[in-house]
Amino acid sequence: MDAVNHQFRLAARPVGLPRPSDWAYTEEPVGEPGDGEVLVKNAYVSLDPAMRGWMNDARSYIPPVGIGEVMRAFAVGEVIASKDPDVPVGSHVGGLLGVQEYAIANGKGVFKVDPSLAPLPVYLGTLGMPGVTAYFGLLDIGKPKAGETVVVSGAAGAVGGLVGQIAKIKGCHVVGIAGGPEKCGHLLEDLGFDATIDYKAGNLDAELSEHCERGIDIYFDNVGGEILDSALAHLARKARVVICGAISQYNNTTALQGPANYLSLLVNNASMTGFTMSDYLSRYGEAVQQLGSWLASGELVSREDVAEGLENFPDTLLRLFAGENRGKLVLKI
Amino acid sequence: MDAVNHQFRLAARPVGLPRPSDWAYTEEPVGEPGDGEVLVKNAYVSLDPAMRGWMNDARSYIPPVGIGEVMRAFAVGEVIASKDPDVPVGSHVGGLLGVQEYAIANGKGVFKVDPSLAPLPVYLGTLGMPGVTAYFGLLDIGKPKAGETVVVSGAAGAVGGLVGQIAKIKGCHVVGIAGGPEKCGHLLEDLGFDATIDYKAGNLDAELSEHCERGIDIYFDNVGGEILDSALAHLARKARVVICGAISQYNNTTALQGPANYLSLLVNNASMTGFTMSDYLSRYGEAVQQLGSWLASGELVSREDVAEGLENFPDTLLRLFAGENRGKLVLKI
Repeated sequence: MDAVNHQFRLAARPVGLPRPSDWAYTEEPVGEPGDGEVLVKNAYVSLDPAMRGWMNDARSYIPPVGIGEVMRAFAVGEVIASKDPDVPVGSHVGGLLGVQEYAIANGKGVFKVDPSLAPLPVYLGTLGMPGVTAYFGLLDIGKPKAGETVVVSGAAGAVGGLVGQIAKIKGCHVVGIAGGPEKCGHLLEDLGFDATIDYKAGNLDAELSEHCERGIDIYFDNVGGEILDSALAHLARKARVVICGAISQYNNTTALQGPANYLSLLVNNASMTGFTMSDYLSRYGEAVQQLGSWLASGELVSREDVAEGLENFPDTLLRLFAGENRGKLVLKI
Repeated sequence: MDAVNHQFRLAARPVGLPRPSDWAYTEEPVGEPGDGEVLVKNAYVSLDPAMRGWMNDARSYIPPVGIGEVMRAFAVGEVIASKDPDVPVGSHVGGLLGVQEYAIANGKGVFKVDPSLAPLPVYLGTLGMPGVTAYFGLLDIGKPKAGETVVVSGAAGAVGGLVGQIAKIKGCHVVGIAGGPEKCGHLLEDLGFDATIDYKAGNLDAELSEHCERGIDIYFDNVGGEILDSALAHLARKARVVICGAISQYNNTTALQGPANYLSLLVNNASMTGFTMSDYLSRYGEAVQQLGSWLASGELVSREDVAEGLENFPDTLLRLFAGENRGKLVLKI
């Protein structure tokens, strides 16, 4: 192949928000797949808050991206050359294919997707990592029971919007926390949330009291910081706090803010449990099957926010941390 | 009765450490029990870190002590008058009898104790609230498995010393955190801990690495603050953090310090769960029976620190927060 593969590589470890100088926009010839490998032409790259953590040189659930390496990202695309008979040319796959136009991957390291069942970006959202994260985080850790009150932060994000909808399917009273009236309107009108709180309006504590009269049974946290602390102050007895992320803290240049109200766990016999999707890889199929079924029946609404152009990757990533995305943010190549 | 009942009443809500002016030392005639009640002559009053929380005007698992009320405390003593045929004169009982010489209590609100089986102070420690707290906190929330690494803070305190010993009975590798070489020696020599860390020596992080090579499976926290944060940085996958108390924070006059390393829960798929003994009142007997059996067989060592004189209550209580007690602190009247 004579084609050129444009890529974003990590040039420096960011301090605070990633800056243009933290990236190197590079090109190299498109390679040939070896035995058992496939060459994928990426169609959509996923932009996820977790990517910020992968850029830090810190012990975590997954090794950091090395300086000079192609930035790690989920992506979906079409197989255009294959030395894995199980993944033929013309099939569509997803996986950790990186922020680049072409990727060579082990055929066993990608998952097949079917663009006739759902548009490709959906496999990066509702039927991808955010969907599986919402599914297991809420159901396996939160363990919702009908009638319970579920509060989710970052509710207009990819994971948060799904958590709220799945909680509704399970018969819960669902309150979403998001920034601004447009996001809150979307949660109420499109996603069927029972109530929303615009944290930017400054009445978080009073609104939690109003919408969670018997306290919060499940708090699903995507943001950390002040919102986590406020939610802790409203826990019901035996509440479950699910720690999925802390987007308000990922770009801190000072020490991370710990939840000062954590002793609410003590007085309420409550728990706070963290997880990542990688804890549930062996059950990935179970979640995707159920999510696909809810999507087909219309019980679940999938919303993607599609930006365009690989070259816009650095700026598009920043939209996540500015809270500008509406649903799952992906980059069309 | 002509006797006088001396009492400590809450005079003001403390800011920081309780001061003498926060107490009123009062006296009143000893009353007569009504129907179903008993009059108890208190022999020992229990001094517990939780008492500091009861002095605050804050929503918690139990209402605060009111200004002007006798200070709430567990105590044991002898029944000297009775209008409950099930609790005759001459029997010994324990319960929330208050910081006073005599208490009138509902006969159904006290538990019988037998001074021929164990000295009375043991019913305020190993066979009382601290014992039941250690038992359920470790076994029901921590769920130890043989071979796991258990770290306990405040290890030379009443609850901590029992947690470590019960973890040893369950076959765990037990590391105690305490302040100073004398306390650490006691844990190793008398209580059978595998290792200790003197947090005052300033090497907490390095010593956690040394003594917890595969990470911490269960961290039982009595202290909060910096020690909790350090322990979070050493969690093993699927670790359980048990939040029993936060004695380092109870007398804060500034905002409580939240655990900045709480995202260790996320990357390790770990949990942090709080509880109080009141969550387990219905299973109190189960714990006391097992603890008594271990005590009788010598598998469990009970240590009490007995101060004397009701009038010394304010100063003796402060010994808890200075870390001066060795085992269960009680006041002999």
